[in-house]
Amino acid sequence: MKQQFDQSDELHTKLMALSNLQPQKTEKLIGEVEKPNNIPPLPDGFKVEPPQFDTSKRLNQGPKSWDLPQELYKKHLPKYNIGTIVRIQELLNAGDSYIGQTVTIAGWAKTVRAQKNLCFVELNDGTSFAGLQIVISEKIKNFADIIKTNVGFSLKMTGSVVQSPAKGQLIEMLVDDNLKHEVIIVGCADPQEYPMAKGTQKPETLRQKAHLRPRSNFFGAVTRIRNNLAYATHVFFQNNGCLYIHTPVITGSDCEGAGDMFKVTTIFDNDLQKVPQLNGKVDVTQDFFKKETKLTVSGQLQVENFCVSMSNVYTFGPTFRAEKAHTHRHLAEFWMIEPEFAFADLFDNMEAAEGYVKFCINYILANNYDDLEFLNKRVKQGLIDYLKDIVSKEFIKCSYTQGIEILLNAQQAGAKFENSKIEWGMDLNSEHERFLAEKVFQRPVFIYDYPKEIKAFYMKVAEDGKCVRAMDMLVPQVGELIGGSQREERYDVLAQRITECGLKLEVYRPYLDLRRYGTVPHSGFGLGFERLVMMITGVENIRDVIPFPRYHGSADW
Amino acid sequence: MKQQFDQSDELHTKLMALSNLQPQKTEKLIGEVEKPNNIPPLPDGFKVEPPQFDTSKRLNQGPKSWDLPQELYKKHLPKYNIGTIVRIQELLNAGDSYIGQTVTIAGWAKTVRAQKNLCFVELNDGTSFAGLQIVISEKIKNFADIIKTNVGFSLKMTGSVVQSPAKGQLIEMLVDDNLKHEVIIVGCADPQEYPMAKGTQKPETLRQKAHLRPRSNFFGAVTRIRNNLAYATHVFFQNNGCLYIHTPVITGSDCEGAGDMFKVTTIFDNDLQKVPQLNGKVDVTQDFFKKETKLTVSGQLQVENFCVSMSNVYTFGPTFRAEKAHTHRHLAEFWMIEPEFAFADLFDNMEAAEGYVKFCINYILANNYDDLEFLNKRVKQGLIDYLKDIVSKEFIKCSYTQGIEILLNAQQAGAKFENSKIEWGMDLNSEHERFLAEKVFQRPVFIYDYPKEIKAFYMKVAEDGKCVRAMDMLVPQVGELIGGSQREERYDVLAQRITECGLKLEVYRPYLDLRRYGTVPHSGFGLGFERLVMMITGVENIRDVIPFPRYHGSADW
Repeated sequence: MKQQFDQSDELHTKLMALSNLQPQKTEKLIGEVEKPNNIPPLPDGFKVEPPQFDTSKRLNQGPKSWDLPQELYKKHLPKYNIGTIVRIQELLNAGDSYIGQTVTIAGWAKTVRAQKNLCFVELNDGTSFAGLQIVISEKIKNFADIIKTNVGFSLKMTGSVVQSPAKGQLIEMLVDDNLKHEVIIVGCADPQEYPMAKGTQKPETLRQKAHLRPRSNFFGAVTRIRNNLAYATHVFFQNNGCLYIHTPVITGSDCEGAGDMFKVTTIFDNDLQKVPQLNGKVDVTQDFFKKETKLTVSGQLQVENFCVSMSNVYTFGPTFRAEKAHTHRHLAEFWMIEPEFAFADLFDNMEAAEGYVKFCINYILANNYDDLEFLNKRVKQGLIDYLKDIVSKEFIKCSYTQGIEILLNAQQAGAKFENSKIEWGMDLNSEHERFLAEKVFQRPVFIYDYPKEIKAFYMKVAEDGKCVRAMDMLVPQVGELIGGSQREERYDVLAQRITECGLKLEVYRPYLDLRRYGTVPHSGFGLGFERLVMMITGVENIRDVIPFPRYHGSADW
Repeated sequence: MKQQFDQSDELHTKLMALSNLQPQKTEKLIGEVEKPNNIPPLPDGFKVEPPQFDTSKRLNQGPKSWDLPQELYKKHLPKYNIGTIVRIQELLNAGDSYIGQTVTIAGWAKTVRAQKNLCFVELNDGTSFAGLQIVISEKIKNFADIIKTNVGFSLKMTGSVVQSPAKGQLIEMLVDDNLKHEVIIVGCADPQEYPMAKGTQKPETLRQKAHLRPRSNFFGAVTRIRNNLAYATHVFFQNNGCLYIHTPVITGSDCEGAGDMFKVTTIFDNDLQKVPQLNGKVDVTQDFFKKETKLTVSGQLQVENFCVSMSNVYTFGPTFRAEKAHTHRHLAEFWMIEPEFAFADLFDNMEAAEGYVKFCINYILANNYDDLEFLNKRVKQGLIDYLKDIVSKEFIKCSYTQGIEILLNAQQAGAKFENSKIEWGMDLNSEHERFLAEKVFQRPVFIYDYPKEIKAFYMKVAEDGKCVRAMDMLVPQVGELIGGSQREERYDVLAQRITECGLKLEVYRPYLDLRRYGTVPHSGFGLGFERLVMMITGVENIRDVIPFPRYHGSADW
């Protein structure tokens, strides 16, 4: 596993300075650390003032801010898992308030250490990163069996919560000869065979054991954070008044471009003789939907239908690409979030995107700090400071034209780019994007108003006729996290763009209809959910942030 | 559209009596009213005491209840849609607190009525069922253009909120010669062409205009309720400590049974010459995933992996059936919710299911009352009373054996069933299920402990060896809403059941592994999300509760 973060990285040093912390002593990271992409350093003395944009051009002025009431930043969690089984998270977060009480817990042993007359078990129930330390006395009647348990055993036990004499933990549980105390060995796990028995395993090894992977510290932490990011997404959009629209997975529309899509069919038989044919071709009218269908690559065009009726909406669902790319950033099946706002221009859109990303980070800082501490120590050093730094600053808004100028000036001042031919009209490379975000501005940056030639047909043509109102959010160490645009709401201009781009007007009739009947300015963006999980967990390989990764050659489990 | 609810239905009369309301005068319903399924009435004098179940057999005793803090029942909503555009829902729900203030709103005209020197516009922005009434004075400078607007036009306007003289509404907006007041005509809609211009349309007509369907009163209400049900689902499970797991849509596993599944492929070419072959068969190793893959029919087996690590989990995602059934209750693509609870038995499972359904209903009663009032009036009379009745009563738990006895007794007492051969071992028909729920108990009923021959291999075999610990939730007027079970956690018993059911052990290795390494009792259920939306909206056809329905022969939009 490559690491996006390099210890010697200038940004890291700066972050450490800002947060007044010394870089921590390097602990062994999960996976190997490789060099990050080669982003050129800032030339000596090169300085850029944050660009200003002309607010008079905005369609809407404040005060819609994308903040939420403070109580929505912290999740309510119950005391019990089921029945009277107390959640270990509840115990660990309750300070000393359980001390002296008798409680029942249940979970899986992380460690078992037997001594002469005591047995120490660390039990984890998945509710929190840390397990609870349990001290079992030999006075308990099945002590002889208990000392034979091992990692992976499932146990249910009742004992007293006591103050812990050990360092680093406030409480532990004592199971002794109290009448109510007991240890039930629910399920065994042969230590010779248990796949999760042998210490820390690399993420790529864990992927081969996907059914038990969530029992690892690493994937458990990722799973809890992924869960809270999914929930934070709903909390953010719902409590900001957006409606969740389930756009379809199976699409029969030709809008989405033919390449790199999966076909969905019921007539493809392994015996090709059985496939219905007509005039030497497959007879698609005999397929389930009586035509060719595919797996969706985006719900945007469909969710726009709801935007121009319900005002603010979003999608959050699985999306597909049949790309054979074997990179650490691509999956064939991934989850995407696509909000769409009515009467909103590109700047409203950028503010929503900034509000959303900040809410997500703050939500994880508030609800998953123990998981982050582990990832900070074992997966990406500096992760917590990196996240705190992002939420503490206003994101930069820099036009594409301003961005090109900055890159040209930096080049003139001595910055060495691998892609050295920088000119207006080019698509920015990853090194350019990260140079702007990591080196020049040292925070997330929106680049907006791109040349129309390098962007999609549905984006609103700007006043100059050369640009479209597109935006990308570039994030230090990550690159592009979000892409969005204001949509072209003028019927004639959109029809012309469709034709210019070599697409067929009749395919886009419903989409054009939205511009015929009460058209409104509207804007939206798209975000690959796994990219967000990677950014916030510091995990470098996308296959390690999704329960069952699907990619070229692999659809296991 | 058939109606599930019949005016003369005994339950309805009872509900009306209970709520001390007279049946309302019948207004014209959307769609036609047909007879409900023929459920026999209770024989004269036939009475059944609610069955008791032996609580000593429970794995867990209280107090885990599936209630949530009161503040989670009502959603926070913002004041503004975007910028300073105030949400119409905010205005309508704020009582008189906006009176005298100048505000800006934006949306689509529902009606436009021009008089000599005034123009009345009802504007809807999708945030609430009702629109806001706006009175525009001729003093406004573009008055001549405004009176030419019509239904479907998009408008943005600034005016003063005033007390309304009209009946049935507290406030309206006045746009006159105040300097700040204005009406911006954002987008036109030619009334001769606008597909939504001509009064109330039937749901089946609206389906043909899926891109504009959300602008109808009917589908707008359904969309807002569907959204809140999706959010309520997350609020319920998340705040009860369950983790949301994204199980995959593309599956390469053979676990799910071959029939009625969609294939996912990149090698199926319309020119069969181009399909890679080996020994006269399709060479599936050359497909994208190097093997055959399909669209999932359930995430249960996969989510169980996470349950036995993280304790409580759930899925909520799209699910697929390639069934050619043309019924009002089936779709080829639908959303399913599948929670799974560790250390939980069948009774914990039933309590969770009851808590979930009640939370959903209460959430909609608290957040969508205006939408419900419309549906109550135009789609299903008695809907609100029906929902209030469900949340007010404890659900019945009745074993399959007790249920068969009740049916036999009822038959003996004179009840006439179309499927009259009632005996232990049979699968219950819809008429039997609804007889129990609607007639006998008049509330939702769990039937549990079914004969193992009629249920799936993974369900826990009960002590008697004849039953499995399965449960179905039967709901009056709806039938089966939820199906679930305690899972077989004993390795040997599960392996035997797999073999008995004619399945291959090697296919289920990972699933069996969960029973080898720290197995725990666990339980879960499955719920078709659209069925829940149908129940709570009173809508009879499943195609009318999903944005873009996919069914045999149809994958439009």
